[in-house]
Amino acid sequence: MENKHINIGLIGYGTVGKGVVKILEENKKIVLRKVGKSVRIKSICDLRPIDRSEFYVKNFKNIIKDHEIDLIVELIGGYEPARTIIIESLKAGKNVVTANKAVLAKYWDQIFTTAQECQKSIYYEASVGGVIPVVQGLSEGLASEEILEIKGILNGTTNFILSEMTKKGVTYESALKRAQEEGFAEAEPSFDTNGIDTANKLAILSSLAWGGWIKVKDISTNGIANLDIEDVLITRDFGYDVKLIGSAQKTKNGIDLSVQPCLVNHEHTFATVENEYNAVMITGKDSGDVLFYGKGAGQLPAASAVVSDIINLSKSIVANTAGVVSDVIYNKNKKIKIIPSGKSRAPYYLRLSVFDKPGVLSKISGILGKYKVSIASLSQPDINDSNYARIIIITHETYRENIEKALKQINATKSIVKYKTVKIKIEI
Amino acid sequence: MENKHINIGLIGYGTVGKGVVKILEENKKIVLRKVGKSVRIKSICDLRPIDRSEFYVKNFKNIIKDHEIDLIVELIGGYEPARTIIIESLKAGKNVVTANKAVLAKYWDQIFTTAQECQKSIYYEASVGGVIPVVQGLSEGLASEEILEIKGILNGTTNFILSEMTKKGVTYESALKRAQEEGFAEAEPSFDTNGIDTANKLAILSSLAWGGWIKVKDISTNGIANLDIEDVLITRDFGYDVKLIGSAQKTKNGIDLSVQPCLVNHEHTFATVENEYNAVMITGKDSGDVLFYGKGAGQLPAASAVVSDIINLSKSIVANTAGVVSDVIYNKNKKIKIIPSGKSRAPYYLRLSVFDKPGVLSKISGILGKYKVSIASLSQPDINDSNYARIIIITHETYRENIEKALKQINATKSIVKYKTVKIKIEI
Repeated sequence: MENKHINIGLIGYGTVGKGVVKILEENKKIVLRKVGKSVRIKSICDLRPIDRSEFYVKNFKNIIKDHEIDLIVELIGGYEPARTIIIESLKAGKNVVTANKAVLAKYWDQIFTTAQECQKSIYYEASVGGVIPVVQGLSEGLASEEILEIKGILNGTTNFILSEMTKKGVTYESALKRAQEEGFAEAEPSFDTNGIDTANKLAILSSLAWGGWIKVKDISTNGIANLDIEDVLITRDFGYDVKLIGSAQKTKNGIDLSVQPCLVNHEHTFATVENEYNAVMITGKDSGDVLFYGKGAGQLPAASAVVSDIINLSKSIVANTAGVVSDVIYNKNKKIKIIPSGKSRAPYYLRLSVFDKPGVLSKISGILGKYKVSIASLSQPDINDSNYARIIIITHETYRENIEKALKQINATKSIVKYKTVKIKIEI
Repeated sequence: MENKHINIGLIGYGTVGKGVVKILEENKKIVLRKVGKSVRIKSICDLRPIDRSEFYVKNFKNIIKDHEIDLIVELIGGYEPARTIIIESLKAGKNVVTANKAVLAKYWDQIFTTAQECQKSIYYEASVGGVIPVVQGLSEGLASEEILEIKGILNGTTNFILSEMTKKGVTYESALKRAQEEGFAEAEPSFDTNGIDTANKLAILSSLAWGGWIKVKDISTNGIANLDIEDVLITRDFGYDVKLIGSAQKTKNGIDLSVQPCLVNHEHTFATVENEYNAVMITGKDSGDVLFYGKGAGQLPAASAVVSDIINLSKSIVANTAGVVSDVIYNKNKKIKIIPSGKSRAPYYLRLSVFDKPGVLSKISGILGKYKVSIASLSQPDINDSNYARIIIITHETYRENIEKALKQINATKSIVKYKTVKIKIEI
């Protein structure tokens, strides 16, 4: 590269984009010391004109074809035109930094194949776990490991909402409102709350861990929008916190992938992960458990991860080595066997709302027994309602498909069940 | 490189060295997939002949001058001949992997200057935090950050001993014996127990964080060998655990560095770090707190980190880019101001053993007050000994130099003090 500076083209000037510009300007000296050349914003593209009009470029195509630009930072999110920007940038000989988990998880194959063909680099540390350097930790720090399990709290929005519900005893709706006021949830939050964002991140980590392409559709995904505050409060008294956990486990039959609200014991490391924080536990055969923890949401933590990518990639650009070593070791033809999530085993919390009449309990335990779901503890708290009774059950470890079959039959028995049974997995 | 394989020369065939050979052989497929070429041991040097005689080379110089060897792994530890091996290997055009924190901390300048001059790489992830990828996390993952603080439990041996003392209420000597039996302490453990090992690791992390060379002698270092089980038990009842913490803090006057036994509240993240585990908390201006946690000792965790370095370095060797980008950004001329540790502030736990007579308490509080040490709580537990009385004090935050001056005066007052006062910093 003959430029005196590393020139950045930034596409997408929202919260994180503004943070990136701020950090690059404030930490100019740190960046210069590490890269050996100054790194500067040359152009910024956004749908609307921006406050920094000296950088404004209306059409991203003009950034991609600008020969002075060394590195393109894609921060618009979503699938299109993000995919086009990444692919066209690589083809135009640019290196890319992105924080976009959705586009990576969906177009993993196309993006990394293109990067390899064009011998260009794409860095994406900010796409998973906010500021936590877990992408690099997994792909390089634990490079030698046979990865057995990945488990994480990967979404700051839902974790903030769950912390609010747990600490203040408020409903999902009012906790969501608070998260929106604090800037931790979007106006349209479903991408976070339905678990898809967590599934995207889990797909990225799993693809890295096992060297193939694990797709979002391979992940059994449930969000938190249906979580009842009642269950949060009941389980809190039992010593549990509710967390949205993405989990990928290597079993002898294949990889078992899920995203779902889970109960973690107050003593569990994940119980201490509050508000916008994220945590990822990676278990390797020789390493044992390795935990990464830090802020998963917020302008500066996310922007910090993007700028770290910019620095590391710029160092390679200066040395003319960017893209020479593949960032993602990915074999298009490697088939990874996914096992149906029904085959995974865990204990469960159940809340049954049943008619208060003789024989109900024996019927329920009969059905559970038929599907080999064994009861660890059972209680019938007084609920001051003569219309129905509540039964709280904690089961022993059981196959997910078995508990689902048992509950299907219990819920279908209209003579005993008043409201649909609530079930939450217990993480151990 | 024209070799069909990446050829490794391993110098030092102790516990970790054997683990490296084992992992390289067992994970051959993972390594091949990531590196693109097979990575194999060509030679092993050790003082004594080894069980794998096909690899044995008696003199390390023959490994350094072997033109077929691409990468030298130094695992003998200590200063010499480790330093010579690293320097001569770099000069002979080899890339180097080491787990040797002592030699890095002591010869930082010479080692990284030589690596830069020879355009060769030296990787050393295993030198700090065992399997935890904190070196890379700090130097690359948090590359954009102005680092404000580094705090860590960095020594598996001492943490194992402290966990034993806390959990079983046994003395330092008997906990050390147990650690030796379990393989977590050396026969001659003073390098670990006197805090020097932690200081070496803290020097490495601090040098990386602030881009200069922070030396072990800049770090005020105290170990755990004088820790009395009485204080462990008393403070446990107060809700604290004792941990050996290395801490580096950027203040407006300079960097404040220390290694010392500290009390952490049961709720503190570090309280959950038990036995051979390590944890490092890095605080950046924009990132906030980022925590890394995993096994800091043990054959396979340490060997796993070494093999990850071998894989990452081998990828660059295959691409012919090893050493082109400096691994450590280090400016020989950058002066880093270190502040005397007396200027740091913290609350303290004090155990005074005083003569049981009127006026003693008022004298003690008078001396503390003179040095502006303010008492947060004070108790006089009954100890069934008519010879002296025990006073337990928890102070408010105070300057270290002030509490030291106050205790010096208290201890010198022979009319009130029977045994020397014990002081332990409280980490908040």
